[in-house]
Amino acid sequence: MSNALERWHAYMESGDPQALSDMLDDDVVFESPVVHTPQRGKEITFKYLMAAAKVLGGPGFTYVGEWHGDHSAILEFENQIDGIKINGIDMIWWNKEGRITRFKVMVRPLKAINLLHQMMGARLAQG
Amino acid sequence: MSNALERWHAYMESGDPQALSDMLDDDVVFESPVVHTPQRGKEITFKYLMAAAKVLGGPGFTYVGEWHGDHSAILEFENQIDGIKINGIDMIWWNKEGRITRFKVMVRPLKAINLLHQMMGARLAQG
Repeated sequence: MSNALERWHAYMESGDPQALSDMLDDDVVFESPVVHTPQRGKEITFKYLMAAAKVLGGPGFTYVGEWHGDHSAILEFENQIDGIKINGIDMIWWNKEGRITRFKVMVRPLKAINLLHQMMGARLAQG
Repeated sequence: MSNALERWHAYMESGDPQALSDMLDDDVVFESPVVHTPQRGKEITFKYLMAAAKVLGGPGFTYVGEWHGDHSAILEFENQIDGIKINGIDMIWWNKEGRITRFKVMVRPLKAINLLHQMMGARLAQG
């Protein structure tokens, strides 16, 4: 496993915001399951990933699969929120320094995306 | 690249329904971006994948990334339908014989899933 991916898994274990911040490149781009337009930069990406961790990363969160590419990986996850099963992927790209340069999330089924859309909106509005 | 993946790419080039049918295991399971419940068996999976090819596989369809796992791969695609940008993944698992045993699709953003939901419904109703 690449060092970047090891650090990601370590962060998911610890939930340490500083570890997340340290991993993100200044010019990282975040692409959400809900909106087409990419979010650019470390500040907004950090905000989204922290909100996603609060919303999605509850006790039932489990990674169920991992696929590897060139300086990138896809991690499939499952969880259940308010009785709705959520299945999705984290797509992670990193640079030579091991910093994350791009992070994309997809979620299924439709019911789960609608729930996530609501919950992320509420969470981001709280700041 | 594995033989199963080569065959998938050859099918995507040719669009030959027989090639698709030959690749699917009898007990293949299909999981859609819209509905949680898996669709089981070759007949229904073939129907869904043919409908998806008609709806999604227009002239603008392009694979933009590929990730590898154990007897499985993820292919990321992009297209544009009625001015709406569609971004998604095909998750493909196969057995030792190279037959596809599981096929899952995820799509983003929300607008694209809603469009796909409508169009797949209409296409499947046509039979």
